[in-house]
Amino acid sequence: MQSLFKTIVLVGRFNTPTLGGPLRQLAGTLQELGARVLIEAEVAAEHGIEDIPVVDRLAIGKLADLVIVLGGDGTMLGVARLVAPYRIPVIGVNQGRLGFMTDIPLKDMERTISGMLAGAFVPEERILLETTVKRDGSKDTVNALAFNDVVFSRGSTGAMIEFEIFIDRQFVYSQRSDGLIVSTPTGSTAYALASGGPILHPSLPAITLVPICPQSLSNRPIVINDTSEVEFLLTRNSDARVYFDNQSDCELREKDRVIIRRHRNTLRILHPVGYNYYDMLRDKLHWGEKLL
Amino acid sequence: MQSLFKTIVLVGRFNTPTLGGPLRQLAGTLQELGARVLIEAEVAAEHGIEDIPVVDRLAIGKLADLVIVLGGDGTMLGVARLVAPYRIPVIGVNQGRLGFMTDIPLKDMERTISGMLAGAFVPEERILLETTVKRDGSKDTVNALAFNDVVFSRGSTGAMIEFEIFIDRQFVYSQRSDGLIVSTPTGSTAYALASGGPILHPSLPAITLVPICPQSLSNRPIVINDTSEVEFLLTRNSDARVYFDNQSDCELREKDRVIIRRHRNTLRILHPVGYNYYDMLRDKLHWGEKLL
Amino acid sequence: MQSLFKTIVLVGRFNTPTLGGPLRQLAGTLQELGARVLIEAEVAAEHGIEDIPVVDRLAIGKLADLVIVLGGDGTMLGVARLVAPYRIPVIGVNQGRLGFMTDIPLKDMERTISGMLAGAFVPEERILLETTVKRDGSKDTVNALAFNDVVFSRGSTGAMIEFEIFIDRQFVYSQRSDGLIVSTPTGSTAYALASGGPILHPSLPAITLVPICPQSLSNRPIVINDTSEVEFLLTRNSDARVYFDNQSDCELREKDRVIIRRHRNTLRILHPVGYNYYDMLRDKLHWGEKLL
Amino acid sequence: MQSLFKTIVLVGRFNTPTLGGPLRQLAGTLQELGARVLIEAEVAAEHGIEDIPVVDRLAIGKLADLVIVLGGDGTMLGVARLVAPYRIPVIGVNQGRLGFMTDIPLKDMERTISGMLAGAFVPEERILLETTVKRDGSKDTVNALAFNDVVFSRGSTGAMIEFEIFIDRQFVYSQRSDGLIVSTPTGSTAYALASGGPILHPSLPAITLVPICPQSLSNRPIVINDTSEVEFLLTRNSDARVYFDNQSDCELREKDRVIIRRHRNTLRILHPVGYNYYDMLRDKLHWGEKLL
Repeated sequence: MQSLFKTIVLVGRFNTPTLGGPLRQLAGTLQELGARVLIEAEVAAEHGIEDIPVVDRLAIGKLADLVIVLGGDGTMLGVARLVAPYRIPVIGVNQGRLGFMTDIPLKDMERTISGMLAGAFVPEERILLETTVKRDGSKDTVNALAFNDVVFSRGSTGAMIEFEIFIDRQFVYSQRSDGLIVSTPTGSTAYALASGGPILHPSLPAITLVPICPQSLSNRPIVINDTSEVEFLLTRNSDARVYFDNQSDCELREKDRVIIRRHRNTLRILHPVGYNYYDMLRDKLHWGEKLL
Repeated sequence: MQSLFKTIVLVGRFNTPTLGGPLRQLAGTLQELGARVLIEAEVAAEHGIEDIPVVDRLAIGKLADLVIVLGGDGTMLGVARLVAPYRIPVIGVNQGRLGFMTDIPLKDMERTISGMLAGAFVPEERILLETTVKRDGSKDTVNALAFNDVVFSRGSTGAMIEFEIFIDRQFVYSQRSDGLIVSTPTGSTAYALASGGPILHPSLPAITLVPICPQSLSNRPIVINDTSEVEFLLTRNSDARVYFDNQSDCELREKDRVIIRRHRNTLRILHPVGYNYYDMLRDKLHWGEKLL
Repeated sequence: MQSLFKTIVLVGRFNTPTLGGPLRQLAGTLQELGARVLIEAEVAAEHGIEDIPVVDRLAIGKLADLVIVLGGDGTMLGVARLVAPYRIPVIGVNQGRLGFMTDIPLKDMERTISGMLAGAFVPEERILLETTVKRDGSKDTVNALAFNDVVFSRGSTGAMIEFEIFIDRQFVYSQRSDGLIVSTPTGSTAYALASGGPILHPSLPAITLVPICPQSLSNRPIVINDTSEVEFLLTRNSDARVYFDNQSDCELREKDRVIIRRHRNTLRILHPVGYNYYDMLRDKLHWGEKLL
Repeated sequence: MQSLFKTIVLVGRFNTPTLGGPLRQLAGTLQELGARVLIEAEVAAEHGIEDIPVVDRLAIGKLADLVIVLGGDGTMLGVARLVAPYRIPVIGVNQGRLGFMTDIPLKDMERTISGMLAGAFVPEERILLETTVKRDGSKDTVNALAFNDVVFSRGSTGAMIEFEIFIDRQFVYSQRSDGLIVSTPTGSTAYALASGGPILHPSLPAITLVPICPQSLSNRPIVINDTSEVEFLLTRNSDARVYFDNQSDCELREKDRVIIRRHRNTLRILHPVGYNYYDMLRDKLHWGEKLL
C-alpha cells in the first residue's frame, strides 16, 4: 500500500525534547510506505536528526505534497500561514492534550497516518484572513495572513482605543473598547470565544467580529459572509496594535486603515475517517454527554 | 410608469385604528399605477373598507404578485410564513417605530413604493425554518414554518428542561436549561439576541443555536450552515413546548424528536434603493455614530 | 464526649431508597452521643423506620435543637424555609455529588458529625428573602420565604413580561424580559448564575437582581444591600408567575405589587472545621487549580 | 446664610478653556457666602486666574474643608485619591455630560451649591482600595490608592497572563486571561461593567473581582465583603502591569504578590437633596422609563 503523497514534510513543536523519538519513528514508517520524507531544519537541529534531509521553513510550501505537524494548535497556526498559499494538505498530531486542529493522538499516530496515506481521510477546507495596513494614502505597509484571527488591541497604556468599522464599504459602527477580534471559524474557539463570541462550524463560509470589553453595552458579536471585506479605521489612539494569530503584530497610527479579506486559498486539513467536529468540541469545552 | 407587479395584496396590523387612512390611500396610488389591488379580509373588515376586493389570509399566496405589509415586524412574521411557499416578494411599511423588516416609514410610503414598483428596489432573500415533530415512531404530528426562530422552552412549572441536540445526525451535546433558540439570521436580532446570541447578517447562509440560561457555564451559541439538519430530543420533562415565531406552539412529550431544516423557498423582501442593513442595525441598537 | 445539641431531627431526600441504611446508622451514632433523635415522618415511612420517634415536617422547628439533612441542595432548600424562623442550626450531608450547602460526604458522615456535635464546627449565617404579594389595595395575599431566590417569570404563552422595579421606593427601571431573579448570596450560584449573575460570597449582606433575557441589551445584574426593599410591579401581562426557590409559586395579575425583604432571621449552617467556600466553588465550577 | 465649610478648594478639569468663567463665578459666590476660597495651582495658571489664592495639588488635603470639582468623573477620580486620606468631602459639577460622581449640571451650579453649603445635601461614603506590591521577599515596592479599580492586565505582547487569586489567604482560583479587574462599587459602572461585571450599589460594603476574557468559560465575576483582603500572584508572564484608576501603573514581575485592601478612610461625596442613584444609572445606561 503506497502513500498517495509523494513528498511529506515533518514539522514539530519547538523546545519539546520528547518529540525526537516520534519524529524518527514516523519518518521511518513514511519511508516504508514509499514517501520521500523531509524534516523542517530547526526541528531536525533541535533533536540532532541527521539522516533525514532537512528543508527550510520558508521552502516547505514549494517542496511538500503533504505536511504532518507534531505539536499543538499553536504549531499548526504557524504552519497554516506558511503552506496555505501553496494548497498543500496538513495532518495534525497532538503530543499531549487533544487540539482543535491536531486531532490525532501521538500513540495512534502510525496506525492512523498509514491509513490516511492510503486514502482513509476526511478533508476539510478552512479559510484564512489576509490583512493589508494602509497608511497616509502611501503604499500599503503590511500584508499578513491569519488562520485564527486578526486582533486589534490597545497597547500597554491601558487606555481604550477608538475606531470605526466598515463592511463592504458600508459604515457599521464606531466603538470605544479594549479592541476587536476579526476571526475565522477556526479562530472562533480561541480568543474570540473568551471574549464572548459564538462558535462557528468550520464549514461555515463566515467571519465574526467580536468586540473586546466595549464601552457601549449594546455592542454584540456579528457574523458576516466570508466574501465580505472588513475595514478598520483607527480614529484616535496613541497606542494600538494589530496582531495576526498572536504570532506577529504591527503598530498602528491614527487614521491607519486596515483591510481584511478572506485569503484566496483555503487550508486543507486531513482528518482520520470517523472524525467528528462536535465530539472534539464537547471534549474541549466539557459539554454534557448523552442523557438517554 | 406602470407597476411591475400586477396583483398587489395589502396586509395590515390588527387592532390598529390609524391604519384605515393609509391603507385606502396606498390602494388608490397602486391602482393609478395600473396594479390590481386586493386587501386582506380581516383588515378590510376592521376598517370598513368595502370598495376594494378582499382576499382571505390563506389565499394570498395563490393570488398575489406582491404583498405590502403595513405594521411592524410582528405583522411581517405572520405574512412571511404565509407567502414564502409561493415565492412572492414582500414590502414592509412601519406604522410607528422603524422595524428590522418593515423599513419604510409611513410618511414616505407612497413616494417610495411608487419608485419600487417601477424597479427601484434591492431584493434580499431570507431563509425560513421548517419543523417536524416526530412522536413514538408514529406519523409526524406537526409541520410548521418559522421566519425568526423555533424556540424550545420550559412551560409554567419553572423546572429546567433536559434535551439532546444532534446536527446532521452527529451528537452535539446534552443540556439542562430554560430552553434553546434555533434562529435564522432574521431572528438573530430578536429573542436570540436577548439570550446572548450573535447577530447574523441576513445574507449569511446560517442557522444559530442559542441556549437559554444553560446550567453548564461553558455552553455557548453555535452557528452552523443552513444546509444542516438540527434534531432536538426531549430526554426528560413534564412540561416543555416548542414555539414557532412565538405565534404558534406545540406541547412536547418525553422522547419526542423535533427536526428542523431550512425551508426550500426563501422569502424575498424588497427594500428601497439605498437600503443599508448596518444603518438599520445601528439605529435599532443605539450603536455609536461616526467619530471622524 | 456528649452532643452539644439535645434534640436532633433527621431529614432525608424523598424517593431515595439508598438512604434507609445511612439514616438508621446515623441515628444510632447520635443516640450513643446522648442526643434525642427524631426523624421526619414521611422519610421514616418511606424507609419503614419504626424504632425512631417521628416528627411532622411542620413541627420540626418547635422541637429540634439541630437538623441534619441527608440529600442534596434541593432537600436543604425545603428545610431552610421550615427552620429559619426558629433559628435552628442545620448540617448538610450529600448523598452523591457534593452540594453547595450539603458539604459533608456520606462516607465521612459519622466521623465528621461526631466531631461537630462536640463543637468542632464553623457556623455560617445565611439570609432568606420574605415576599408579600399585594393585590388591588386588598389585603396581602401571599407570604413566602425563599432561601435561594424569588423568580418572576413568564408562563407558558411564550410572551415576555413587562414590569417596573423599585428599590427602597425609588424607581429603578422598567423592563421587558423573560423575567427577573431576586437572589440571596446562597442563590447566586444557582439559577442566577445561569442567567449571567455574579457570584456573591455567602457572608456578603447583599441581594442581587438578575434579569432573564432582557430585551434591552444595556440591562445588567445589580447588587444591593440586603437591608433594601425590592418592589416588583407587573405592568402588563396575561401570564406571569412568581416562584419561591422553584418549590412553590403564585400566579400574578396586572398591577400586582410584590414586596421582597430580607427575612428577620438567618439560617445557621454548620460546616466541619476546615471548610472553605472557595474550595467548594472551585470544585463545583471546575475552576483552575494552583499553577505554582 | 453662612457656608458650613470654611475653606473651599476649587479643582477643574485640565485643558478645558471654557472652565475659566465658571471657576471665577463660583469663587465669587462662595466668597459672598463667607467661605475662604483657594484654587488648585495648575488650573489657576491655565485660566490666568490671579486674584484667588492658589494651592498646590498635594497640599489640598491639608487645607480644605470642602473640595468642589468642575469637570467629569476622570477629574473626580484624581481628586478622590488625593483627599480621601484627609476625610474631606467633595462636590462634583459636570461640565458637559452627566457623570456618575459629578452629578450637578454646570448651569444649576451656583443655586445648587449655595443650598448645599447651607446644609441641604445628602452625604454618601464611598470606599477606596489600597494596593501594595510585594517583590522577592524584599520590602514593599509600591503603595497606591484607587477609587474605581485596580486592574491587572497583559502588556503589549498580546499574550495572556497567568495568575492565582487568594481571598483572606484562601486560594480561590488560577486563571489564564487578559487580566482581572478588582473594583469598588464606584468602579463597578466603569471598566468592570464593560468586562461583564455586575453593578454594585455605592452603599454596598463590597469589592468585585471581574475577569477579562478568561480562557476558562466557567469563570465569572465574584462579589466579596470589602473587609476581605485580595492577593494576586503573578505565576507566569513576561509582560503584565497593574493599573490604578487607569491613571498610574506599575510593571509586574513573575512571582510578584499584589495585596489589595479597603483603604481605612472613605471618600465623602455630597449630593444635592433629591439625588437618586437609580435615576442617574437609568440616564447613563439608557434604561427603560416607567411604563405605568
